[in-house]
Amino acid sequence: MEKLSIIKIGGNIIEDETSLNAFLKLFSNLDGNKILVHGGGKRATHIASKLGIESKMVNGRRITDAETLEVITMVYGGLVNKNIVAKLQALQIDAIGLTGADINSIKSEKRPVKEVDFGFVGDVKQVASNSIDKLIKANFTPVFCAITHDGNGQLLNTNADTIASTIAVGMSEIYETYIYYCFELNGVLKDFNDKNSVVKKIDTDTYKELLDAKIITDGMIPKIDNCFDALNNGVSKVHIGNTSMLTKENDNFTTITL
Amino acid sequence: MEKLSIIKIGGNIIEDETSLNAFLKLFSNLDGNKILVHGGGKRATHIASKLGIESKMVNGRRITDAETLEVITMVYGGLVNKNIVAKLQALQIDAIGLTGADINSIKSEKRPVKEVDFGFVGDVKQVASNSIDKLIKANFTPVFCAITHDGNGQLLNTNADTIASTIAVGMSEIYETYIYYCFELNGVLKDFNDKNSVVKKIDTDTYKELLDAKIITDGMIPKIDNCFDALNNGVSKVHIGNTSMLTKENDNFTTITL
Repeated sequence: MEKLSIIKIGGNIIEDETSLNAFLKLFSNLDGNKILVHGGGKRATHIASKLGIESKMVNGRRITDAETLEVITMVYGGLVNKNIVAKLQALQIDAIGLTGADINSIKSEKRPVKEVDFGFVGDVKQVASNSIDKLIKANFTPVFCAITHDGNGQLLNTNADTIASTIAVGMSEIYETYIYYCFELNGVLKDFNDKNSVVKKIDTDTYKELLDAKIITDGMIPKIDNCFDALNNGVSKVHIGNTSMLTKENDNFTTITL
Repeated sequence: MEKLSIIKIGGNIIEDETSLNAFLKLFSNLDGNKILVHGGGKRATHIASKLGIESKMVNGRRITDAETLEVITMVYGGLVNKNIVAKLQALQIDAIGLTGADINSIKSEKRPVKEVDFGFVGDVKQVASNSIDKLIKANFTPVFCAITHDGNGQLLNTNADTIASTIAVGMSEIYETYIYYCFELNGVLKDFNDKNSVVKKIDTDTYKELLDAKIITDGMIPKIDNCFDALNNGVSKVHIGNTSMLTKENDNFTTITL
């Protein structure tokens, strides 16, 4: 089976031109089949506020009303995605920017209203792995933004981490898939105050130990749980760290396996 | 040779939800290989003005400064393009939204500064017909917005009519190509006050007659000249009329041939 790397970057990289350019250089040098997934972060909030659209948050989570969805579609699907594609082309990567609506690649369902109405937020239902593979086989490099669709004409805002993991799971029918979650830190840290205290390997057993020892807590728990979900559904390995984990020189990042 | 239709729609259709939905239904029912090209029109001006960016015009032509390019990338490449793609998916058309940067499909050159500095405006240099054909052969339907790139990481605003005709010329190496320019009128009119006075056929000889008789004047001349350029470079036919020319029932539109 051929390998396929799915690399996810967040707002901290996208919002800073120098960081973005440095990352894209690393990404372009990465061997083998690859897919990039990006969020949009504060840029959307910033443009929404300029347009007089208030960002509504409930329990720290953004509510995507119709106006906010328009801004997200503009910023993630247009501004951020197309500039990344143009920059990758300049680095000789034949990139193609996508939402989940393009080639029907990621179908989702509007999140049902329970205690909170999140608005136009989609939970992924289906990844069209064969369609995505047609692009890869044609030597194109897919660049996904954090937008999906419901198949009935409605775009939906979707968490970029989830997009990365569901693509990796879907593509694992065809490829040996590896997820790289790039973030600010070097990896999962034993001691939050020591940025070099990286937990290099986490597997099912060590995860339990880390939970018991309260080294992994709070917001990290659902993230790591999602990694194990992906691993249990066909993904080979999940890597967490800063962007330099894409180079061969750096081995100071976290690798999660079953 | 198989046929390929390139359909271009303008601001009047995009800005009105009902018109857009009606057009997309017609487009989805069109037989054979097809490509959609759209502009963005007043929506970009509207959002630019909300963001406090003044639209600068010289001799009736928009100047694309860096801020305006950002708005165009958001509106054409994001909001308009991705909503069209989602709507086409709902009509069972496996659409894929593109700028000229995606799959390096349309490379352009920043317009040289002469009397006017148009800013980030690109004149098309090269269409990657083989790459676009990979999408068509994979049964995807390309949807192009009016943005190209220079290959060095810079996106450029480009006239949608030109995008349609240069794609048609480029693809004519592989397909028998037909352009459909959809606009408000039924076609080229003999009498501007009689909307049914359509000139049904224009060829090289009749074009001279229409020019001599001053039936085709002003802004129409460069448009028709561009049509003949496309025909002289491999395009089979150019059709001009309202969107109902895509149906078999309507034959009241203008067809231009050599």
